Amino acid sequence: MALDTGTEALARLAEEHIDHRFKGLPPDAAGLTVAELAGQRRNLFTGGFTTPVLALSAERLEHNLKLMETYAARHGLAFAPHGKTSMAPQLFHRQIEHGAWGITLAVPHQVRVARAFGVQRVFLANELVDASALRWVSAELDADPDFRFIAYVDSVRGVELMDAALRGAVRPVDVVVELAAGEGARTGVRTEAECAAVADAVAAAPTLRLAGVAGYEGEVPGADPEKVHAWLRRLVALAADFDKAGRFAGLDEIVLSAGGSAWFDAVADVFAEVPELSVPVLKLLRSGAYVSHDDGHYREVTPFNRVPSEGALEPAFRLWSQVVSRPSAEQAFTNAGKRDAAYDLHLPFAQVVRPADGGPQRPATGIEVTGLSDQHTWLRTAGEAELQVGDWLGMGLSHPCTSFDKWQLIPVAEADGTVVDYIRTFF
Amino acid sequence: MALDTGTEALARLAEEHIDHRFKGLPPDAAGLTVAELAGQRRNLFTGGFTTPVLALSAERLEHNLKLMETYAARHGLAFAPHGKTSMAPQLFHRQIEHGAWGITLAVPHQVRVARAFGVQRVFLANELVDASALRWVSAELDADPDFRFIAYVDSVRGVELMDAALRGAVRPVDVVVELAAGEGARTGVRTEAECAAVADAVAAAPTLRLAGVAGYEGEVPGADPEKVHAWLRRLVALAADFDKAGRFAGLDEIVLSAGGSAWFDAVADVFAEVPELSVPVLKLLRSGAYVSHDDGHYREVTPFNRVPSEGALEPAFRLWSQVVSRPSAEQAFTNAGKRDAAYDLHLPFAQVVRPADGGPQRPATGIEVTGLSDQHTWLRTAGEAELQVGDWLGMGLSHPCTSFDKWQLIPVAEADGTVVDYIRTFF
Repeated sequence: MALDTGTEALARLAEEHIDHRFKGLPPDAAGLTVAELAGQRRNLFTGGFTTPVLALSAERLEHNLKLMETYAARHGLAFAPHGKTSMAPQLFHRQIEHGAWGITLAVPHQVRVARAFGVQRVFLANELVDASALRWVSAELDADPDFRFIAYVDSVRGVELMDAALRGAVRPVDVVVELAAGEGARTGVRTEAECAAVADAVAAAPTLRLAGVAGYEGEVPGADPEKVHAWLRRLVALAADFDKAGRFAGLDEIVLSAGGSAWFDAVADVFAEVPELSVPVLKLLRSGAYVSHDDGHYREVTPFNRVPSEGALEPAFRLWSQVVSRPSAEQAFTNAGKRDAAYDLHLPFAQVVRPADGGPQRPATGIEVTGLSDQHTWLRTAGEAELQVGDWLGMGLSHPCTSFDKWQLIPVAEADGTVVDYIRTFF
Repeated sequence: MALDTGTEALARLAEEHIDHRFKGLPPDAAGLTVAELAGQRRNLFTGGFTTPVLALSAERLEHNLKLMETYAARHGLAFAPHGKTSMAPQLFHRQIEHGAWGITLAVPHQVRVARAFGVQRVFLANELVDASALRWVSAELDADPDFRFIAYVDSVRGVELMDAALRGAVRPVDVVVELAAGEGARTGVRTEAECAAVADAVAAAPTLRLAGVAGYEGEVPGADPEKVHAWLRRLVALAADFDKAGRFAGLDEIVLSAGGSAWFDAVADVFAEVPELSVPVLKLLRSGAYVSHDDGHYREVTPFNRVPSEGALEPAFRLWSQVVSRPSAEQAFTNAGKRDAAYDLHLPFAQVVRPADGGPQRPATGIEVTGLSDQHTWLRTAGEAELQVGDWLGMGLSHPCTSFDKWQLIPVAEADGTVVDYIRTFF
């Protein structure tokens, strides 16, 4: 049922009309459906798109989807890519087509988006104690026997609040105890003794079922390979101890989950060492940023830098903006700003220039982004930079999560600029 | 015509259905129209809203709208509030009902939103050299004789690009020469001699008409009252010199515009001294942040701090999030993050706690926001903070522009929590 829901909902996305809701698209495409506009195969540079416009590379997107599918399979990991990154149901479905077990999410609104598009397995990598949201989740579970939902718990009080909100539900909600990444880290239970107390509370709550353990190695304080491996071994030991104590009795599988976008090599290492437990273990990796990758933070921290023989992700975003002002030889301004580009980890990176006169694209030599206003990029230009008003500047971005969330309909362009698809996001 | 367009378009907004597109709204409101949900007058705290949820104060919004209407009228200023702040057509219309001349915008996509809702006068406080966008503007002008559109120019090359794109247009596009706020400042012409050269280029372009001069005092380097007044006097002198040189011959009025949200007192001072020119002067103030005001940056920089006898803006946003984790006595985490809160100027400010058990709201004493992840707020708590998992934390925000842009449908609540309206944004 839900798979059909998903297919139908995706089809409805293709029938949405192009209008003022979507920035960067050609004004003369107003009134076309998304499918009709995609069918025109317009060129990003000559097809009437207005600046600023963010584009995804068709080839790089597909490369990244395939690479992580291969990586997870090679290492015997199930994969629930974090959907908060893109919040794009079309990408959720492509991730699932590329072998993903399901989709990881962070807040109940995101689960609503995934369910509206028929996603059948959701791992909520966060605590959830909101009574309205819990009642909605419970109704989804009761209405669809094929819906699998798993959430974190990290406190006895949280378990009690969940249980109180869920009274009357038919199906219990699966939960995993979140082990914190260390003292001062983010959410999660700090000690194994407290983990046991939380698991006891779950066992006492008729509306909940303990399904496993999980955590996020990305928050290990002062993370380095040694510390991350050590914490992952604590997580595996917790699963083994819980299993030995009979806490997973009656399950078909035990859920064991970790893995953001910076340490999945360590997750693969340590999860390969998981001992045999009473039932099979679902080793669930949750990396999300890989889908677009980036030119900044994730380029620096990707595990593929440590294991180059396993491949390399490719940055799939490029933000095109136009030089609107060139007030001095040292300064230029484009029309992209905080509304268009991620700015939480790095400023954008000037990469290429497409001259307004239609000349060939060239590297953005001597051009540096020095700041972002709400609607402007500040550029410093050196002597060699022949940048003119009207030129398009292509920029790389840092942080996929805060790039996707500034665009509601993103053109997907092939290397020659042909736009073959449009990705809808829901933030 | 366009006013009817606006009324109809606003009515269609009220008929939109509540669904997965809009976060924070009650799951059990799915399928209702916005008008139906507003008609239910649900309570923000007990009506099934899920966290995080951003709310606007009905009373404070109205207060701010009235205060700036009064301020502009008292000082003889026309007012084109910057619409980039909210990108909310409902607020554009309320601003116009409160006496605004029109709406200021920054990029052509924003003009498309305003036009879709019948806004008749648009001041584009930015250069515009994008051929596709210019052709769209030109078609709007030719189709609607009541549409008034004014854009910046700051280079001869920009004028040439505009003219080339606009060939064939019936109505010329009105432009104002942007005077830069100083060396190293943002866009704008740096010297009066260059301003004259740009004005000469406009005079030679049959598709453009020189309508006045403008600039943005908020970018004066090392801004203080003296420097801002001095720059504003340069701007007024430029208008007077252009007028004397006959550059405004044939106009009904000369446009003179400045004024962000930090120095409108200086604009009022200096624009009061404008000498008599050959035709009346439209003194156009453009402040935008006032509509919601804030608890951070604009609280610090608002001109009302210098002229308290003229009133005070009131921060109208409060972001409600829920404590999901309390891993230690010193730490707590809520479920709002970078997706929900502005983080470019300050972190959010913990203001009030509403206990999960329904007890009375109390000040957030001893609670401090120390960081934001994508989907979490990090809190440091002191001994006196009795914060529990499940409690709602109300936070103030800093920077209206980057608060509005994270929410597509924002509940407007009265002081007792009754939600009376929903504001739709288009970013």
